[in-house]
Amino acid sequence: MVKVGIFGATGYTGLELVSILLKHPQAQIQFATSKTHAGRSLRDIVPSAPDLTLIPPQEAPLDSTDLVFLCLPHAAAANTAVIALQANNRVIDLSADFRFQDVAIYEQWYGVTHPAPELLQEAVYGLTEFARHDLSDTRLVANPGCYTTTTLLALQPILAAQLEISGDIIIDAKSGVSGAGKTPKPNTHFVEVANNFSPYSIGRAHRHLPEMEQVITWWRKDPPRLIFSPHLLPVPRGILANIYVPLGSGWHEGQIRELYAATYKNEPFVQILPPGELATLAHVTHTNRCAISLTFAAGTLILTSATDNLLKGAAGQAVQNMNVMFGLEEEIGLL
Amino acid sequence: MVKVGIFGATGYTGLELVSILLKHPQAQIQFATSKTHAGRSLRDIVPSAPDLTLIPPQEAPLDSTDLVFLCLPHAAAANTAVIALQANNRVIDLSADFRFQDVAIYEQWYGVTHPAPELLQEAVYGLTEFARHDLSDTRLVANPGCYTTTTLLALQPILAAQLEISGDIIIDAKSGVSGAGKTPKPNTHFVEVANNFSPYSIGRAHRHLPEMEQVITWWRKDPPRLIFSPHLLPVPRGILANIYVPLGSGWHEGQIRELYAATYKNEPFVQILPPGELATLAHVTHTNRCAISLTFAAGTLILTSATDNLLKGAAGQAVQNMNVMFGLEEEIGLL
Amino acid sequence: MVKVGIFGATGYTGLELVSILLKHPQAQIQFATSKTHAGRSLRDIVPSAPDLTLIPPQEAPLDSTDLVFLCLPHAAAANTAVIALQANNRVIDLSADFRFQDVAIYEQWYGVTHPAPELLQEAVYGLTEFARHDLSDTRLVANPGCYTTTTLLALQPILAAQLEISGDIIIDAKSGVSGAGKTPKPNTHFVEVANNFSPYSIGRAHRHLPEMEQVITWWRKDPPRLIFSPHLLPVPRGILANIYVPLGSGWHEGQIRELYAATYKNEPFVQILPPGELATLAHVTHTNRCAISLTFAAGTLILTSATDNLLKGAAGQAVQNMNVMFGLEEEIGLL
Amino acid sequence: MVKVGIFGATGYTGLELVSILLKHPQAQIQFATSKTHAGRSLRDIVPSAPDLTLIPPQEAPLDSTDLVFLCLPHAAAANTAVIALQANNRVIDLSADFRFQDVAIYEQWYGVTHPAPELLQEAVYGLTEFARHDLSDTRLVANPGCYTTTTLLALQPILAAQLEISGDIIIDAKSGVSGAGKTPKPNTHFVEVANNFSPYSIGRAHRHLPEMEQVITWWRKDPPRLIFSPHLLPVPRGILANIYVPLGSGWHEGQIRELYAATYKNEPFVQILPPGELATLAHVTHTNRCAISLTFAAGTLILTSATDNLLKGAAGQAVQNMNVMFGLEEEIGLL
Repeated sequence: MVKVGIFGATGYTGLELVSILLKHPQAQIQFATSKTHAGRSLRDIVPSAPDLTLIPPQEAPLDSTDLVFLCLPHAAAANTAVIALQANNRVIDLSADFRFQDVAIYEQWYGVTHPAPELLQEAVYGLTEFARHDLSDTRLVANPGCYTTTTLLALQPILAAQLEISGDIIIDAKSGVSGAGKTPKPNTHFVEVANNFSPYSIGRAHRHLPEMEQVITWWRKDPPRLIFSPHLLPVPRGILANIYVPLGSGWHEGQIRELYAATYKNEPFVQILPPGELATLAHVTHTNRCAISLTFAAGTLILTSATDNLLKGAAGQAVQNMNVMFGLEEEIGLL
Repeated sequence: MVKVGIFGATGYTGLELVSILLKHPQAQIQFATSKTHAGRSLRDIVPSAPDLTLIPPQEAPLDSTDLVFLCLPHAAAANTAVIALQANNRVIDLSADFRFQDVAIYEQWYGVTHPAPELLQEAVYGLTEFARHDLSDTRLVANPGCYTTTTLLALQPILAAQLEISGDIIIDAKSGVSGAGKTPKPNTHFVEVANNFSPYSIGRAHRHLPEMEQVITWWRKDPPRLIFSPHLLPVPRGILANIYVPLGSGWHEGQIRELYAATYKNEPFVQILPPGELATLAHVTHTNRCAISLTFAAGTLILTSATDNLLKGAAGQAVQNMNVMFGLEEEIGLL
Repeated sequence: MVKVGIFGATGYTGLELVSILLKHPQAQIQFATSKTHAGRSLRDIVPSAPDLTLIPPQEAPLDSTDLVFLCLPHAAAANTAVIALQANNRVIDLSADFRFQDVAIYEQWYGVTHPAPELLQEAVYGLTEFARHDLSDTRLVANPGCYTTTTLLALQPILAAQLEISGDIIIDAKSGVSGAGKTPKPNTHFVEVANNFSPYSIGRAHRHLPEMEQVITWWRKDPPRLIFSPHLLPVPRGILANIYVPLGSGWHEGQIRELYAATYKNEPFVQILPPGELATLAHVTHTNRCAISLTFAAGTLILTSATDNLLKGAAGQAVQNMNVMFGLEEEIGLL
Repeated sequence: MVKVGIFGATGYTGLELVSILLKHPQAQIQFATSKTHAGRSLRDIVPSAPDLTLIPPQEAPLDSTDLVFLCLPHAAAANTAVIALQANNRVIDLSADFRFQDVAIYEQWYGVTHPAPELLQEAVYGLTEFARHDLSDTRLVANPGCYTTTTLLALQPILAAQLEISGDIIIDAKSGVSGAGKTPKPNTHFVEVANNFSPYSIGRAHRHLPEMEQVITWWRKDPPRLIFSPHLLPVPRGILANIYVPLGSGWHEGQIRELYAATYKNEPFVQILPPGELATLAHVTHTNRCAISLTFAAGTLILTSATDNLLKGAAGQAVQNMNVMFGLEEEIGLL
């Protein structure tokens, strides 16, 4: 039984994590924190949530846990990670704080001084399917971003294959509103979102872009440039991205389909759809799956990739990482 | 050409009013104010809005206008009304400030001291269909609440008919989210509203209840008690209410249908539906209409009444009142 | 391990049932039928569904099962029940076929001749919380309607208490669109439903009314008359009903709250909310729970009751009934 | 006063057209047809529609009209066009029947033999902003497709400028559900659409692709290849497309912005947004506008273009074309 604590349990990611862990047969929640709602029950915040009393973060009993999940704003997460590691906890951080190996990129995109740059080399980037070996004995996991996970799982086979890519890769991605967080803002007001659809930070302006570009360098020297266009979709949850890969010479459809089939054939949470079936949000919402379809259009490979941003894109993958870290069955608690 | 000003142009009601008045062939907007967005264009706030520069309320050129509309919070509205009246403007106030004849009821339900109680007797309650005579020469109109308008138009014929009502009248009402205002709050976050439906302030707890109960005393001595249950509906706009009237003896269906037909036969904005057709939001959204259907069920009359909360429930009725006040055709600018 | 078959697996109720039973640790699906999709996988119909091959109903291997669930249109359900019982299966029927003790009422409201009236007396009406004793050894369960379950769980304590109710009980109920079934119809088209809200069959015209009126006679002689107004709500799932009970003399709030607390204190799936908290869809969607709040308003008790129409209102309650019938823990597979 | 008739008034496009024309000060509806609803009022079909009696198409009084609009399925439209032209009507066809100059392309993509290929050379392709000269004296207008209008208005300046484009142009487009028509189908069921987002016919498989590719040849010899990915968006109306144009050498941002400003500076219905503001559906729904924003990302120009698919993408542009054909002010009836 893994004993876990959750920092920041009242955001959408934290709530999803609580919900998964409460049903997880080999995990036990020891505490859940909230700065603004300490002393209240989680049920007071979310009617369908369990009756779990929230404690202030500074009172977290770190001697009672093996592992803590951090669902905190950036910088706050790194500070808490330091404390948790000192108290001999393992840490899965769902913020961006440990996702970058180069502290300068982090500081440029997040606009803060990194509180614990010395931990960056140690942190394992937890895109589970490609990180199992490193996960098993690490103390610190950087859980990937939601857009990033959705994009990278689709791109890995084609990029790692090393054949020619003849131009920039375009990622046109759409996310449900829970991705914008729980704090009420003008752009998450129901009246503004319903009946609307809106791009934001398109081109090379969104924080998940440098995260993607870092990871693809691990798979391919001289990787293609990415163009990334996120959008706010009028649904509560789910991400769908179309990824346009301009294929150079030497490729053919059958070979690429085999590549994807081979890469993911034993993966419980990555589903390569048969030709003719396109990935949709309905394939993945309320699951930890990533569904990927391949469409070939005159020299361009269109990868359509879908996840639930709160599950495979956040809390689900975090638990998947926990399962690997503690030698549990990888699917446990996630089906 | 009526020269008008709008105080508080950036809320949902204010925006709707601007939109109607810009197309109104006999009205001309002289100014629109905003405390928080002064100096900016309305287009910066709402992409589809016109390019109208917002001014601070204290700079409103009241010598350039015949009429001002107040889309302000309560108390602020009354204070502005005093200033506008002094500057020889007529005033249509969309807040609750002048809706109550008894200042004690206002102060009890709104929790503030009334800034200008001396104006209460002068103000005309602008439920247009029943206020035309008084509207034509008043300086000050209290525009009714949205739930109130929807309920009162449905209740007037049956209450005014003086036959027996044998118990409390139950009003089960549902409103789109624009009724909750534009300020982002936890309960208007898209993720909280989508896929949800929630009652609030049910029973005898909502501010529109005393407003309804005041008006029905004008139509009937010893009026029935009202039970009122509002709900938040996951749509941007529209109100639909079911109103359950327990009929005493002496009624029959044909007579009641004739009563409604007669009351509203020449009304452009009240539509009594034929037997078998029930009112829905689709009858009324984006129109200034109130659609009403009558269903008879074993001694209970069920009135189903629908309006667009931003139009007949607010800005539309305000312009309808303006048309009457200035001797224009009542439908102008509203079709 | 209970071996089960599902007739009619591709409607919304059938799909929900498959989804629950696949995760149920003590049930095993032996077959799932579909008239129109036989030979295909359930995954072809619903992207997130499991890969389960559908068989034609006439090929169902009834010798391999202990229990069948019928998610079929009325009349078809009764015909299948006869066959399944003959093959020594127990039957949980989710249609209306066995809900009425009086065949005349069934035939009047459903417009068909009952195919197996001889089974009506034997069938147990499966409102689980009030049927456990009869469920344990019955062969045939009539699973209640969704509106009916939501209403009856809220009404039972007050009706069974035998104190005076002074008039008709009004039920103003709202259901998500899955309640209208999966066959595409003009009134379930996205464009017609989004931004809309519409009553239908209000008064004393909906088929769930006689079902409710039958059951309340078991709890109270000379029961009150019901007025029932269903609506289509622009959400996929969930029912919320306001139930207005006019209280006669002799009641007081504290006593009624105690009555509800006592009735449901050990019930895992009925949640009586504390004073001040109102039931919403968010309390219950994706759960097998019924959430009930009590509001007192000048002599009227307002019961607000919410369920997920596909779970406690259909498939969830069906599995709850199965659990009782087979002596399993009642909550198993449903948390 | 232009006397008009509408064939096919009960689909989403026909209804929108009726709604515009009824308010148009210089047009008068002489008749509206419906094959399935003839004899009924439009109000019976759509609660908010006007009380207009529908006639069977074969009874259309073509001697009473100057112009007919065809909102009919393909092939049916061409057959009706022949009859209307013979009766000395001018024709605006909203189907695809007269959009292609090459009958073979039409027959390949639409799978029917063209009923009147002799009219193809005569028909004017009604992308109003680029067709005014030809519109003024034509008898027959092919109103462009919705995706096509949205894409072409954004592409025209950059393509017509003749500088180098260095690869395929990718169009990632999303449409509201009214674009899928009013006939209920599984993929337009509310439960399937809400909370979902789904691509369809992506790559080079959708019928609007050859339409776009035909038109761009008028603007540029040796035009780039297009990749086109349409999606179903969970909103009733609106289209938003991101169009990725890989710029060759010789371009710079300022020059391209000037090009767009110059092309559209006097256009009432095309709005080029200032740098930093991205087009959204909220810019355009319920208007006849196309809003376009330009984003520059490392050698790629991202054009974000939005329209209301029922207005500038169909009925609105049809009326705009009528206005030009009959020498009326182009904006009349459309503001």
